[in-house]
Amino acid sequence: MKIEPYVRRVNYYETDQMGIVHHSNYLRYFEEARIDFMRQIQCNVLDLERMGIIIPNVDAYAKYLRLLRFDDCFTVSVHPASFTGVKMKLEYTVVRESEICCTGYTTHCFVNNEMKPMILRHSFPELFLQLKEVFAG
Amino acid sequence: MKIEPYVRRVNYYETDQMGIVHHSNYLRYFEEARIDFMRQIQCNVLDLERMGIIIPNVDAYAKYLRLLRFDDCFTVSVHPASFTGVKMKLEYTVVRESEICCTGYTTHCFVNNEMKPMILRHSFPELFLQLKEVFAG
Amino acid sequence: MKIEPYVRRVNYYETDQMGIVHHSNYLRYFEEARIDFMRQIQCNVLDLERMGIIIPNVDAYAKYLRLLRFDDCFTVSVHPASFTGVKMKLEYTVVRESEICCTGYTTHCFVNNEMKPMILRHSFPELFLQLKEVFAG
Amino acid sequence: MKIEPYVRRVNYYETDQMGIVHHSNYLRYFEEARIDFMRQIQCNVLDLERMGIIIPNVDAYAKYLRLLRFDDCFTVSVHPASFTGVKMKLEYTVVRESEICCTGYTTHCFVNNEMKPMILRHSFPELFLQLKEVFAG
Repeated sequence: MKIEPYVRRVNYYETDQMGIVHHSNYLRYFEEARIDFMRQIQCNVLDLERMGIIIPNVDAYAKYLRLLRFDDCFTVSVHPASFTGVKMKLEYTVVRESEICCTGYTTHCFVNNEMKPMILRHSFPELFLQLKEVFAG
Repeated sequence: MKIEPYVRRVNYYETDQMGIVHHSNYLRYFEEARIDFMRQIQCNVLDLERMGIIIPNVDAYAKYLRLLRFDDCFTVSVHPASFTGVKMKLEYTVVRESEICCTGYTTHCFVNNEMKPMILRHSFPELFLQLKEVFAG
Repeated sequence: MKIEPYVRRVNYYETDQMGIVHHSNYLRYFEEARIDFMRQIQCNVLDLERMGIIIPNVDAYAKYLRLLRFDDCFTVSVHPASFTGVKMKLEYTVVRESEICCTGYTTHCFVNNEMKPMILRHSFPELFLQLKEVFAG
Repeated sequence: MKIEPYVRRVNYYETDQMGIVHHSNYLRYFEEARIDFMRQIQCNVLDLERMGIIIPNVDAYAKYLRLLRFDDCFTVSVHPASFTGVKMKLEYTVVRESEICCTGYTTHCFVNNEMKPMILRHSFPELFLQLKEVFAG
């Protein structure tokens, strides 16, 4: 399955007084790209939430290599790194004109509407298999 | 009843590349001050939400008079402007060192958990009387 | 000149615990649409800033008519309302599936890098004429 | 030197539709706490920027252990982890009612107004010694 990178332009309000994108916004870019990735692999986050599956962050990391500035066009590529049925890890690469500007990853678990963790294999075996296949590459 | 103004310092991430607070953040300052005001008049927003009363914005206006910058200390005063039982309007004044930097207002309605409007006088008569008294000054 | 509306999808981080887009984000949507509009009329905001022309907000207003939610697709149309050479006013309409969700306006002035107001007709006569034509419709 | 933890309450606009603080905001809490920490050790970030010393993020990590919700009071403790004169690393612990909710770290370098890296020992020897002492504990 061919996944298209997520394409975006830097908004004015995402800059700070250094004249660059505030570092916290990269976690938001990762999220936008992750949701786009989930859509592409037929696991729309909105549909999952309607089924009672919420996917909060367990952790998040970003490494800032080059500065993005207002109006810059960039892409975010998402790489499905690992999936155990309890957790999943995604890696991100932010690129502007073939230069890597930021890399990072996020780890997620699966919880129900009461924010209680679930084991996907038991609660949603079809989704479990679907994700397993995607993460197997 | 004496209401204390809300006191705040500008955060770094609230600035933009003009070197000033991004204008959208003033609506967030208004909200922080409004929630603090509601707490002071014994109408804690969190308690209201637990009772099933949500208070979304109907509109919002801000006029920018002087620029707030990173690390500036400022206060937000909230003035209860009008209350009909269906809508309430609050006015805000943002002050730094006795200079007015921003004024504005927000109008709100009262809705239940399904976002359906409610008439406070019928649904929550005690809260209705409480707010009526506050807004009468 | 035909101006295309700005197209956008609601991001997850733009929602709040009411399950709707936080009202402050509409000012950010207005800004995104304004910058896109400025690009379409050949007045790229980034180019203007490089020329030493900054266009801060004098005021901003938003009226919330229907709720936008996560993953909703919407458009923002920008209408050039008035331009005096000292100030310009733009009006916005946020539409999701032919329903108006939010309307509003922003007023702007023109300042130099030291945030001192300028009279465009004197400082940048070409830009003055260009904007005058766009706002004349 | 005794450093006071940074105290904060969760704002409404920091929640998302999960009903919890959006994970990206913890990087902002870290920043607020870092700036407060810098003030306490007499290295006010605003003063440093006026001297031409900017301290952007090299990376950032956050691990989410318990969920913060609207109106929660919490503290952020900052621990100076390492300082080489070229980079500094700070660690953070977010606590609500004696429960750890989030831990993390950020690494920073020192750059001038043109975003060019500097070696503090050469460019600002006094600041270098001051930070060296703080990080030595």
